[in-house]
Amino acid sequence: MRRHRSNLGTLLQHVHVSGPLSRAALAERMGVNRSTILALTAELAGAGLVREEAPTGTTGAGRPSFVVRPESERFFVLAFDVAVDRLVAARVGLGGPILDRRSVARSRVGADLDTVVRELAAMGRELLDAAPPGAVVAGVGASYCGMIRPGDGMVRYGPEMGWVDQAFGTELERALGIGLPVAVGNEAHLGALAEFARGAGVGHPDLIYLHGDVGVGGGILVGGKLLGGEGGYGCEVGHMLVNPVGGRPCLCGSAGCLEAETGEHAILAAAGRPELFGRDAVRQVVCDAEAGQLRAAGAMAEIGDWLGIGVANLINLFNPGVVIFGGMLREVYAVAAPEVAARIAQHAMPVSRERTELRLSGLRDDATLLGAADRGFGALLADPLVSLK
Amino acid sequence: MRRHRSNLGTLLQHVHVSGPLSRAALAERMGVNRSTILALTAELAGAGLVREEAPTGTTGAGRPSFVVRPESERFFVLAFDVAVDRLVAARVGLGGPILDRRSVARSRVGADLDTVVRELAAMGRELLDAAPPGAVVAGVGASYCGMIRPGDGMVRYGPEMGWVDQAFGTELERALGIGLPVAVGNEAHLGALAEFARGAGVGHPDLIYLHGDVGVGGGILVGGKLLGGEGGYGCEVGHMLVNPVGGRPCLCGSAGCLEAETGEHAILAAAGRPELFGRDAVRQVVCDAEAGQLRAAGAMAEIGDWLGIGVANLINLFNPGVVIFGGMLREVYAVAAPEVAARIAQHAMPVSRERTELRLSGLRDDATLLGAADRGFGALLADPLVSLK
Repeated sequence: MRRHRSNLGTLLQHVHVSGPLSRAALAERMGVNRSTILALTAELAGAGLVREEAPTGTTGAGRPSFVVRPESERFFVLAFDVAVDRLVAARVGLGGPILDRRSVARSRVGADLDTVVRELAAMGRELLDAAPPGAVVAGVGASYCGMIRPGDGMVRYGPEMGWVDQAFGTELERALGIGLPVAVGNEAHLGALAEFARGAGVGHPDLIYLHGDVGVGGGILVGGKLLGGEGGYGCEVGHMLVNPVGGRPCLCGSAGCLEAETGEHAILAAAGRPELFGRDAVRQVVCDAEAGQLRAAGAMAEIGDWLGIGVANLINLFNPGVVIFGGMLREVYAVAAPEVAARIAQHAMPVSRERTELRLSGLRDDATLLGAADRGFGALLADPLVSLK
Repeated sequence: MRRHRSNLGTLLQHVHVSGPLSRAALAERMGVNRSTILALTAELAGAGLVREEAPTGTTGAGRPSFVVRPESERFFVLAFDVAVDRLVAARVGLGGPILDRRSVARSRVGADLDTVVRELAAMGRELLDAAPPGAVVAGVGASYCGMIRPGDGMVRYGPEMGWVDQAFGTELERALGIGLPVAVGNEAHLGALAEFARGAGVGHPDLIYLHGDVGVGGGILVGGKLLGGEGGYGCEVGHMLVNPVGGRPCLCGSAGCLEAETGEHAILAAAGRPELFGRDAVRQVVCDAEAGQLRAAGAMAEIGDWLGIGVANLINLFNPGVVIFGGMLREVYAVAAPEVAARIAQHAMPVSRERTELRLSGLRDDATLLGAADRGFGALLADPLVSLK
């Protein structure tokens, strides 16, 4: 019985991550026979979680296999993304489609817990009101740009917003008031998991995802699992010291951290535009560098140099299959790739880097949001029928 | 049947790692009842792997529980340790006691594969000849100061000895000629596993072991498992860049690596003794620093500073429960602890370091050797009765 329930979740997880799959493909992936798949899909279809469709077209020999498709319009989660510069809320369907979304620039709202939670809850309620009749909210997930305590979603440390020990998860749950807990994760951790599930990291269980927001964060998968450590606070890539002598000051109180040398402030300062801020200003530096403007090109080379040192260190430590550049770093890497490659060649051991690929985020600006959605789907996917009761 | 065989191995693993255990303790650890333990120990005792002894003394209420003890004199492995400056071979009994050992300074033999393998095989045969009649060699393990390909024990890269792609594992197996494969591991990886099993890291599945030989290596456990990465080459802590501007040259071709700034050459150069080499010379610097000799104390402070930067970075990345200083770094840390602590306070995030303990190696100079022995015991512990056939 427990096996059966766990199989229901596994099947639903497969169609959630991979989209519509034939019964034959499911049987092969799960290592069970087709009659088991038939029973499982019947049960999930009965609960309205999937539907089965006759295959379109014939594929030659053999009996065509029915296709199992997640009911994306019917089951959804609320996903929130708290970045330094903006708040995003979305309704994400089973299977991963973003069905509806709201966002607001954070400069328009305050940075304190109450304001942020109130704004997120309002957006969440708007999304719920706009959902079609009969649609079911199966969970809530949130991504935050700071260190998160596993279990209750307490923000232990979020220097960009000045948060220390703020009860974000429980407060957002209370403000939403729909009787569902909020599963919170660090933005880069969630981005790493999302890229592994359905982005540039599919098939790479040893994966490093670097996320540029205003700061720089990292999510590291070891053997397909998020590197947690003793308390769940591993992966603080942004505060790896890369420039110990005369490094730029960091919000954490140290100086020369990877974040201090490659984050938004560093890029704009290096480009001689310290009075500016925001993604558009960073994008302009990248554009100007690509267009050959000397100061901007020099800034990107400098940033790429420090980024490359950080990546080389990570390659030596983790021997990853893939390193993915996401968020703002996606655009930075696109122009700073030569410096990154040079530092890797100089500092990463040849054996450590021989199979490492460098890639741009496949999910682009939605990586963290989709990671938050997957957290929200956690309970449903662990035990589909029980969680609906 | 498979469950039963796996339980046999699990029980043997418990007494191998923890030493003599009562049947009651085994039942509790394994989550099985005492009649199962009785059947398992009877079978293992029949094969001569353990013996049962009546408990000495009474412990108050209840029936006293028989004690299960590994037959350490009867079953042993050959364990080899190839360090930069010496070769060690030992006969290590089931349960971990070092029963006999030979060693030779590597300066007395060459550094090439053939010479090293010939010397090790000769020591191994000597140990076998000296073993008591009826004693059974159950496996062979070896520790090497370089990057090891999982599976066949190929040394991919061992800069201190100038080895690139040397078939160490298979050559040592051939030279020994006793029909047993040689399980090879990197010295710091094996040290980490040994400290976790029976040293300063017991109970800490998120563990970092730093090993100082002539170079500096690291072994990192994540959730109790060695961090492997895509190809098994993770944990190259020694080549993490800590001093990017004007760092000391490293044997790997880069400069400013943790190894270049904290290894033997760095210590002796910083102490103004660049013409010296070897552990005794390093120990003299440590002693002189402890005695207040200014140049030596300054050298140790400088080394501690770089070591602290490396450790701070590792704490940010891994949120470890414990960081263990082993090999030569055990002695270095004992005197450089203030600088290490200062750098951690400055650069490691408070949340990341709040539960991290810093410790000296519990197994001292035998950590790597005992790790190699455990590799050698791998087959026996995985399937005790089959591996004896």
